[in-house]
Amino acid sequence: MDSKNKLTAVQYGVGPIGQRIVRNAVSKGIHFIGGVDIDPSKVGERLDDICETKIDGEAKITDDASSLLPTSPDVVFHSTVSSVEKAESQLLEALEAGSNVITTCEELSHPWQTHPGPAERIDKVARENGVACVATGINPGFVMDVLPALLSTPFGHLKSVSVTRIQNASQRRIPLQQKVGAGLSPESFEEKVADGAGHVGSRESLEMVADGLGWSLVDVTSTIEPVIAEAPVENAYTEVDTGNVAGVRQIIKGTTANGKEISLDLQMYAGANRPRDEIKLNGNQEIVVTVNNGYHGDHSTAAVVTNIVREILRADSGLNTMLDITLPAYQEVY
Amino acid sequence: MDSKNKLTAVQYGVGPIGQRIVRNAVSKGIHFIGGVDIDPSKVGERLDDICETKIDGEAKITDDASSLLPTSPDVVFHSTVSSVEKAESQLLEALEAGSNVITTCEELSHPWQTHPGPAERIDKVARENGVACVATGINPGFVMDVLPALLSTPFGHLKSVSVTRIQNASQRRIPLQQKVGAGLSPESFEEKVADGAGHVGSRESLEMVADGLGWSLVDVTSTIEPVIAEAPVENAYTEVDTGNVAGVRQIIKGTTANGKEISLDLQMYAGANRPRDEIKLNGNQEIVVTVNNGYHGDHSTAAVVTNIVREILRADSGLNTMLDITLPAYQEVY
Repeated sequence: MDSKNKLTAVQYGVGPIGQRIVRNAVSKGIHFIGGVDIDPSKVGERLDDICETKIDGEAKITDDASSLLPTSPDVVFHSTVSSVEKAESQLLEALEAGSNVITTCEELSHPWQTHPGPAERIDKVARENGVACVATGINPGFVMDVLPALLSTPFGHLKSVSVTRIQNASQRRIPLQQKVGAGLSPESFEEKVADGAGHVGSRESLEMVADGLGWSLVDVTSTIEPVIAEAPVENAYTEVDTGNVAGVRQIIKGTTANGKEISLDLQMYAGANRPRDEIKLNGNQEIVVTVNNGYHGDHSTAAVVTNIVREILRADSGLNTMLDITLPAYQEVY
Repeated sequence: MDSKNKLTAVQYGVGPIGQRIVRNAVSKGIHFIGGVDIDPSKVGERLDDICETKIDGEAKITDDASSLLPTSPDVVFHSTVSSVEKAESQLLEALEAGSNVITTCEELSHPWQTHPGPAERIDKVARENGVACVATGINPGFVMDVLPALLSTPFGHLKSVSVTRIQNASQRRIPLQQKVGAGLSPESFEEKVADGAGHVGSRESLEMVADGLGWSLVDVTSTIEPVIAEAPVENAYTEVDTGNVAGVRQIIKGTTANGKEISLDLQMYAGANRPRDEIKLNGNQEIVVTVNNGYHGDHSTAAVVTNIVREILRADSGLNTMLDITLPAYQEVY
């Protein structure tokens, strides 16, 4: 807390998501001490100028985290990379300085199966410093894991969980359209996939759902394929010719030894018809839950991050997942 | 834990919901020591016989809680009455014996505004004994409070939350149809309402949502009115003539000083068209979430109770609400 009893924060990573996080957090009364970014065009600038908001005092952006983190803010918001290997040293530095950390690092959302080494090291340092760390966002972190887990609570018996998220990439920013391959030829799409492109976090979402339900997955399969435009698609950013790639469809499925199944189907493509988030649960009831249009990607990720500050402050120290924190909700003000 | 390392439980209240709780909990590996009920036809009987399940050992039903609670089971499932005044001494006895308590007592789901006296006493005794207590179910406890709270998490700015739950009473048991007044004349319905009939827990759900969001309600209004049959309704239990009462509609609304609003609309009537749970959230996004057909009442309440055992065991001691426990999900086995 600062002298006015406001919660204090540092923004680590001042890209598009980081800027939204700062705007949201400032609107909820959180005071920023500064930001960290390597972009030379941002270093030395005022954090509020870059984020288009207003912060009291001299909150600047630096490329030297070690000049800022020792101020031990209550929370460090971290949004730099999807790779936990690349994020690890950044996260450890913040935790060692005694700050709680909320990060958008997708691979850290439920890393115990996929990245146990970094997970154990981050958990250990967080415990040693009496602070908590959690990775979250809209996906992974909410729509395809936290929400289906919660929706399963009223089931006496459960056989399967199936989540479909269909996003219309036409309504998203250019990097997202490039990420999903909108406009590419099928051949270029295959090269892109061979290079490791695709949504990061599906496996972590799958493991989070299984963990929440107490299911042990014995078989996990995943596919990634292009969605081919059946008619030309045109939007503010991209043109897609018929027969070219409108976007991507990724499906991951996990089954238990006794045939229970979790299936996550993510479709992001330009011109998507009836975008939505849809969760089907089958057991002693059959429930279909539909979020019409679906949660917005970028807006929602920044909101989830800034709405779980209360939860991270009361969480057990160590590396948490969204299953370990108390029930989150929108927060008007801190 | 008993000698086989199973979690141990007592069922306090062996009515229809209590029996479902026992069946669910047994299927998840929880061991019952016994049950408590005042019904002379159940006292002395085996708990598993009454609940149509199989329990190892001699789990009997007694009308003397003090003969059973000192065994200090890990958890007491409590489902006797909606009134916290009537439930208080039962809950205190279980907490004083050192057991965690999960109860369906509707008025205790978020009692701090409506029943602060019992809430404080229950909280104090739970803390003194290092155990946790929470009241839950499908409504209150999930559909009209926990679920909308969670669904608000991806909002950067939120103006209103509106929940509609439409249940087809034709598909529910006779007590529920009687509770909603199906088949009554409008005059008889008014007398019933004057006697205090209606769903218990709406105000608590409203306060839970407000608490979750950090909204302070300055004005709360509620209405209860009959749903009149526009055509004859017939089902296995009830006949409703045109012009008579098919069921009940209860609306409760709360507003904040700056015009934010929470609205909960509960409709339970025979012959309801398109039963569903629907949650609308407006702010920087507009989201409509629909649970087609809606969660089943009785089945879901028993399931929520038995699925949060993990959460109550790790909760802080004292009186919790569903906002204070870690994210619940269906549990395969304990």
